[in-house]
Amino acid sequence: MSERWVACDWGTSSLRVWAMEGATALDEAHSARGMGTLAPEQFAEALDEVAPAEWSGPVIACGMVGARQGWVEAAYAAVPCPPLPDGLTRAPGAREVLIIPGLSQSDPPDVMRGEETQVAGFLALNPGWDGVLCLPGTHTKWVHVSAGEVVSFRTAMTGEMFALLSTRSVLRHSMEEGWSDEAFLAAADVTLSRPERLLSDLFALRAGALLTGAGDARARLSGLLIGAELAATRPFWLGQQVAVIGADALARSYVTALDAQGAPATQAKGDAVTLAGLTAAWRRWKGET
Amino acid sequence: MSERWVACDWGTSSLRVWAMEGATALDEAHSARGMGTLAPEQFAEALDEVAPAEWSGPVIACGMVGARQGWVEAAYAAVPCPPLPDGLTRAPGAREVLIIPGLSQSDPPDVMRGEETQVAGFLALNPGWDGVLCLPGTHTKWVHVSAGEVVSFRTAMTGEMFALLSTRSVLRHSMEEGWSDEAFLAAADVTLSRPERLLSDLFALRAGALLTGAGDARARLSGLLIGAELAATRPFWLGQQVAVIGADALARSYVTALDAQGAPATQAKGDAVTLAGLTAAWRRWKGET
Repeated sequence: MSERWVACDWGTSSLRVWAMEGATALDEAHSARGMGTLAPEQFAEALDEVAPAEWSGPVIACGMVGARQGWVEAAYAAVPCPPLPDGLTRAPGAREVLIIPGLSQSDPPDVMRGEETQVAGFLALNPGWDGVLCLPGTHTKWVHVSAGEVVSFRTAMTGEMFALLSTRSVLRHSMEEGWSDEAFLAAADVTLSRPERLLSDLFALRAGALLTGAGDARARLSGLLIGAELAATRPFWLGQQVAVIGADALARSYVTALDAQGAPATQAKGDAVTLAGLTAAWRRWKGET
Repeated sequence: MSERWVACDWGTSSLRVWAMEGATALDEAHSARGMGTLAPEQFAEALDEVAPAEWSGPVIACGMVGARQGWVEAAYAAVPCPPLPDGLTRAPGAREVLIIPGLSQSDPPDVMRGEETQVAGFLALNPGWDGVLCLPGTHTKWVHVSAGEVVSFRTAMTGEMFALLSTRSVLRHSMEEGWSDEAFLAAADVTLSRPERLLSDLFALRAGALLTGAGDARARLSGLLIGAELAATRPFWLGQQVAVIGADALARSYVTALDAQGAPATQAKGDAVTLAGLTAAWRRWKGET
């Protein structure tokens, strides 16, 4: 059996592909044609554009491409279950495109698409790992993993809230460049210890800037929101082994805030984890594992 | 001295004027030319457009017209102080336009512009009243009033958050027409008792709609946010006499939620209160009080 295949991470706002031979990436490409920009009949062409036919073998895809508004709906698998349960969904068309299912949870209701592949990749790179994974982003996921299964998870809209408040609310007038870890941590501490103050403390960012020219509004906004998220997800991280997936400034902020709570977290690179997860899915599809 | 004057409520998104004779409105008009749409040199013409020169006498104005980005900045008065402290700010130009100062608080930092006039109007209509006023809106104000003075106040960005989340976030896909008081109250109860759950419970609105078609997302979003606001402002309303200013559905929601907490609140009409406050400012300017 040929070892050639195509790895595909297809989210709401971007599309990323790798030409693979076994676990080795031979080439890669990306485009801005995310799921959110495409009608169902446009997916095949958007894929061919970045991953030409010379990139032979099946395409293993994860992410919002499998949402109801995507190419074809890949049904959710209900937790508790392995991050890569059986059953890929074949997209319509000549090219063999196989989409990884998302995960769902009934109580409290929650869903993920794409992050399950990162969870699988992290476990492939860290066999036997038990603990909690934090995947920061527009919708940050907290995932409790035990014995190779996703036991439960929770989503916080922190990233989307930060984007809306910093660019579209009255707080946008107080946002400046620059960052202060100290201001971030002080703000995170406020909402971690007094989460009920979030809605009133947000406006104080604007009032403080008006009255005294108080700075660091960006770091303090991020701190108030991430502190509130950590208050919401305390049962996930308290006393657990925690790994934050991502190497960017946002992931570092989570590590900094957790560390200040006496909950040291490790960091893992997001790209490597995604590719390891897609590779695990490909091996599983081939029947190797 | 003539009893003719012009009452003017000039907010961010609208402008409303009344031709007055003493405490009696002879005529009224409004336009969408709020402070947010105008450069400083456009205010005079925007006012003349709705309040023609035949509307004689001084113009007494409240609201964002006196903000730094408005016609002319009317400095804040620091609480504790009466809602209408001495000193109106005269706008540049031939017409006599006098702007009421906003109020500020240093710790926690907070500001208001326009609501102080409603507070004064409520007190003019209810002499000797002590308690807490709730003024729902884009930025809801909670105002502690005692012995005719504003003692302290707090702003919650609940209205702006609702607008952003219901029209610009992923939750917009789950918003429907219709309203359920029961769903609103159940959601308010969640964040009132567990305010730390706000950021994660918001995403559950979307996940619930995806997984089970759960409805009432609009009422539940409003409930989660207003419940969190009531948790943030509990020191204001707990065990206090509370009046909610406004007669619309939003004001009713606050009354309903407070009532469920054993904190019965009365309601006052917003328009009448604003006009009574502007009238009190005019009397004070004339030296009558």
